Amino acid sequence: MEKFEINVLGCGSAKPSPIHNPSCTVVNFRDNLFMIDCGEGAQKEFQRQRLKFSRLNHIFLTHLHGDHVFGLPGLIGTMALSGLEGDITIHTFEDGKKILTSIFDYFNRGLPIDVKFNVIHPEESVIFENSSLRIGTVPLRHKIPAVGYVFEEKPRLRHINREMCDYHDVPLWAFNAIKSGDDFTKPDGTVIPNTLLTKDPLNPRSYAHISDTAYMPDLAEKIQGVDLLFHETTYLTQDLDKAKERGHSTATQAAQIALDAKAKCLLTGHYSSRYKNDNLFLEEAKTVFPNVILGKEGLKIMIDDKLQI
Amino acid sequence: MEKFEINVLGCGSAKPSPIHNPSCTVVNFRDNLFMIDCGEGAQKEFQRQRLKFSRLNHIFLTHLHGDHVFGLPGLIGTMALSGLEGDITIHTFEDGKKILTSIFDYFNRGLPIDVKFNVIHPEESVIFENSSLRIGTVPLRHKIPAVGYVFEEKPRLRHINREMCDYHDVPLWAFNAIKSGDDFTKPDGTVIPNTLLTKDPLNPRSYAHISDTAYMPDLAEKIQGVDLLFHETTYLTQDLDKAKERGHSTATQAAQIALDAKAKCLLTGHYSSRYKNDNLFLEEAKTVFPNVILGKEGLKIMIDDKLQI
Repeated sequence: MEKFEINVLGCGSAKPSPIHNPSCTVVNFRDNLFMIDCGEGAQKEFQRQRLKFSRLNHIFLTHLHGDHVFGLPGLIGTMALSGLEGDITIHTFEDGKKILTSIFDYFNRGLPIDVKFNVIHPEESVIFENSSLRIGTVPLRHKIPAVGYVFEEKPRLRHINREMCDYHDVPLWAFNAIKSGDDFTKPDGTVIPNTLLTKDPLNPRSYAHISDTAYMPDLAEKIQGVDLLFHETTYLTQDLDKAKERGHSTATQAAQIALDAKAKCLLTGHYSSRYKNDNLFLEEAKTVFPNVILGKEGLKIMIDDKLQI
Repeated sequence: MEKFEINVLGCGSAKPSPIHNPSCTVVNFRDNLFMIDCGEGAQKEFQRQRLKFSRLNHIFLTHLHGDHVFGLPGLIGTMALSGLEGDITIHTFEDGKKILTSIFDYFNRGLPIDVKFNVIHPEESVIFENSSLRIGTVPLRHKIPAVGYVFEEKPRLRHINREMCDYHDVPLWAFNAIKSGDDFTKPDGTVIPNTLLTKDPLNPRSYAHISDTAYMPDLAEKIQGVDLLFHETTYLTQDLDKAKERGHSTATQAAQIALDAKAKCLLTGHYSSRYKNDNLFLEEAKTVFPNVILGKEGLKIMIDDKLQI
């Protein structure tokens, strides 16, 4: 199965703890790396996890708080010093383009990497698309404008049933059309229906990355049926008042979104450093939704049929 | 003996290696912390080494390359989130004040810490002074303006020889003047010379922090007799051409400065990530100067009589 993997590089929150890095996640889609947020130290963790700078061309920022951004200037500098050329696109709000441009212009001037910006807006929209993947934003509710990102694999072609094709003497040149769903017409005029010649492809897969946000019940509808849902779990329910005040969610609220969205699996993260035992997030979320993975640095999650744990 | 300690937080160079952080050093002088440079990840290492944010009020930047600066916004943000108030002074060039102000204004607005700037210039001058310590800059030769910092303990007061003072019936009120070097005149007019009533104080101690710079033979004169000299050793002699081209020094050159300056001890650092074995810097420096300490993260060096190893 083609690679669609989530790499956790940082699952701490604003005040770093000795055990967690600030926010950073890398989505590996068919060996193209897409980074979401870039907290301080992301470049070191990226290298520690043996990810390849040469495969990284897109960085998506959810919002402009320092713990999601401060690793960017160093990362870009190191990529350039590593001899990489070409360009890298940063997807962020207009404000982010302004402040990051001034930082790069000062510190990274003359480097061979061309940093491009794709200005996003705090509304739902498709911001990246190629033949196999679509990436869109969903608006979140935080203290400042913030978006989540949804990665959707496009429907794949049908699988050729080689035995049946051979039986009906289907020539190789017809395979592409058949994969796309066409029937096959034999030289004598007989039509062989596509369903006889092919098998169903695997279901397209999806990943939603929701950080940072207050609890948004209406979010579930927008990410209905997602395979893997990362939803921030900054607080435990015992600190629900703090979560509300600061525009964050509790583990229970994240699990409720996963349940309402009929997600296959929930990934936790963005932990407040006030808690010394991460397992509390897992335990709390599991009281609402059964399939929870406790996020931690170095974790790699393959999105496939085995995801439902 | 009062504390005068050097804490190594980062001794990598521009391109971080998996084993080294970018530049950061903390001088602990009588429990006041002075940070020199603040590379990415400095705040995490600071906490790992159990240093106290509440004791940190001054940060000195040697120059404005990212690997000496990119840890600053996160450090300031974390200090504020840790409930610290008051102010912190960043000593840097006018350019640094400008770019850092724009970053702090955007990302750290509303935080309770007041960041002040002391604008320095690439010439020799005293930039900090109190009753026990003087900190001055020395100009260096790098690709952009750069300075080193020299920490000089002020001469301490003479030690009271309690036995002799008691013998001569010296009253307590006279002790301060005697510590400062005054003789004592008894009520009958007899003058007791200071040398009888006191012992010599310990010699004042000094630390010079020299990074980043090309080899500057004339530097040795300016830091003559320094106790501990940190001098960057980015390269080995086998890469002397690269050192020259990029405004850096080799381990041999750093050792030559230590020898010429009659330093007690040399501390190495700012290692290029091209070398996989740090001991090579130690071995090379020792061929020129005997007392070398190999810098590494977590190292703490007390400047005292035992420094001469």
